[in-house]
Amino acid sequence: CASIALSTPALVVDVDKVKRNAERMIQYCQKLGVQLRPHMKTHKTLECADIMTGGSRRCIVVSTLAEACFYADHGFDDILYAYSLPFDKVERCAALSERLDLFQVLLDHPDALVQLKKRPLKEAISEAAGVELTGVYVHCGNTYNCRGVEQIQAVAQETTSLTLQFMEKLKCVGITCKSSIGSTPSCSHPVPDMAKLSEVHPGNYAFYDVQQSVIGSCSLEDVAARVLTRVIGHCPHRNQLLIDCGWSGISLDGAGKLPTGYAVIEGHPNLKLLSMTQEHGRVEPLSGVLDYSKFPLGSLLTLLPYHSCATAMMHPVYHIHSEGRLLGKWTPTRGW
Amino acid sequence: CASIALSTPALVVDVDKVKRNAERMIQYCQKLGVQLRPHMKTHKTLECADIMTGGSRRCIVVSTLAEACFYADHGFDDILYAYSLPFDKVERCAALSERLDLFQVLLDHPDALVQLKKRPLKEAISEAAGVELTGVYVHCGNTYNCRGVEQIQAVAQETTSLTLQFMEKLKCVGITCKSSIGSTPSCSHPVPDMAKLSEVHPGNYAFYDVQQSVIGSCSLEDVAARVLTRVIGHCPHRNQLLIDCGWSGISLDGAGKLPTGYAVIEGHPNLKLLSMTQEHGRVEPLSGVLDYSKFPLGSLLTLLPYHSCATAMMHPVYHIHSEGRLLGKWTPTRGW
Repeated sequence: CASIALSTPALVVDVDKVKRNAERMIQYCQKLGVQLRPHMKTHKTLECADIMTGGSRRCIVVSTLAEACFYADHGFDDILYAYSLPFDKVERCAALSERLDLFQVLLDHPDALVQLKKRPLKEAISEAAGVELTGVYVHCGNTYNCRGVEQIQAVAQETTSLTLQFMEKLKCVGITCKSSIGSTPSCSHPVPDMAKLSEVHPGNYAFYDVQQSVIGSCSLEDVAARVLTRVIGHCPHRNQLLIDCGWSGISLDGAGKLPTGYAVIEGHPNLKLLSMTQEHGRVEPLSGVLDYSKFPLGSLLTLLPYHSCATAMMHPVYHIHSEGRLLGKWTPTRGW
Repeated sequence: CASIALSTPALVVDVDKVKRNAERMIQYCQKLGVQLRPHMKTHKTLECADIMTGGSRRCIVVSTLAEACFYADHGFDDILYAYSLPFDKVERCAALSERLDLFQVLLDHPDALVQLKKRPLKEAISEAAGVELTGVYVHCGNTYNCRGVEQIQAVAQETTSLTLQFMEKLKCVGITCKSSIGSTPSCSHPVPDMAKLSEVHPGNYAFYDVQQSVIGSCSLEDVAARVLTRVIGHCPHRNQLLIDCGWSGISLDGAGKLPTGYAVIEGHPNLKLLSMTQEHGRVEPLSGVLDYSKFPLGSLLTLLPYHSCATAMMHPVYHIHSEGRLLGKWTPTRGW
């Protein structure tokens, strides 16, 4: 495996799994007849966006304006900035809107409409002072409390029903627009009624993670992102190993959520990533005494992240492989 | 205040406070007669390194080899890579060593010496196969459990005494070398015996943070790094505000450590940063009902980070100001 040559800690992404996860979501949406608008916030890279959009570079969601600009700079269009219009960024939003065929922001307060009307997003469109209601955006974040497909689908159904009821109410007052619901768990196990929506906007499914496997969105085999780390210390007086992945390499997300600590250590179900400093991780067995001969200094361990969005954020570059053969690097955008 | 013009979330650094914190540490060390070897891991920038080294660009500590290379590329020398020699980075260490007058790595296992001898760090030096013992490096991480100057100084004294005893033992077997102890708490309140050491290597003191103020290393007024954020939502049904700083802007460090949550919200001791998603923070009062008229959408709040090392890691750029006047940006290095 060529990844053995990598300097650690390193975020490695199995491109075959990413493609399989992306293709599965595309199939689900085609079958339902809804538009897929994939979210970019987990990876923030061009290459993964190409895989998730099937190469169209159209119809994406982003979580920061920096992402929106990054994708616009690289020929992406029909970008939804899924964020309550930030008053300090109206001018940047307007400028971006003028460069794109379609740029959408979220409004959740009358004051935001006032702000928006001060600087119309499309000067060419005079009606409604350059502001057009495109649709209703819903995120069923409560799917993250689910355990198993049945619970996920119950929330997906509830969210879909409530959204459709709301669309009906809008229709009654003469407003017809799109409806978009999201969350990776609900879109990983869609319910038939979701066919009545205009679009869905999941994001984490490209990489998935341990959290999604615990929820039931995927299996651990679907998780495409891992952190490679090396053993750098033996601490028999504490029955611990030291590894070269601290919170700067995997993030502090997932504290207290897993019996195995901040990650799942692949192939070692008895090991726990107990705690971390900036550049060190402390690993101990769930039970028994560590056999250090199995973990010589310099040997590799593979961490499955609890939350791939948080883990990816810590890495300035992702190492891409296919069946262990390194293919290159993806560079994410950062900032706001 | 010009920082009002900044797009949020933004890491803002008060350069006057950084200079004052750095100058104070330089004074302490001069008074003790020990060499100050400041740690770069908190900020990872050239500009702050210049302030901490008094412009000498000599005698620093780093936590990653990427930092070591970054500083070497910019004319810094006498760099200590404070990390147990990583077996995957021996060749990069050797290459760096050949570019610098002085490059030091840590050894804490006989196997590491074997690795190092396979690729001497300085080919020109033949004795001991190019490996030279420079000194003993000690980090009193247990100062982070202290509360107040008295406890800090007790740990500083204990660490100093143990280190000096160890140096004596080395001397008895014919080894004379340097001694270096660290931790921002102990160096912020040095004890007289530290004068007997060769050097100290604190780092966090340039920025300080809420954690250091809780320990007693500094006052909240000394904290030089803040995250500017804006109110982006009112949630009266939950008695909460939404702000545009999530864990991508301040990190998840400090969970459960402060009554005010993940940060101290400057000027609002009754507010708590309760929880975060990637790009949203939820703020609620410690008691009573929120008066939303005091927090209109778009208004600024200032977060004092629990752990500035972790918060700085989340930002691709730091905005530098003097008395609120923006002076420019510092760009940190990232990766390993």
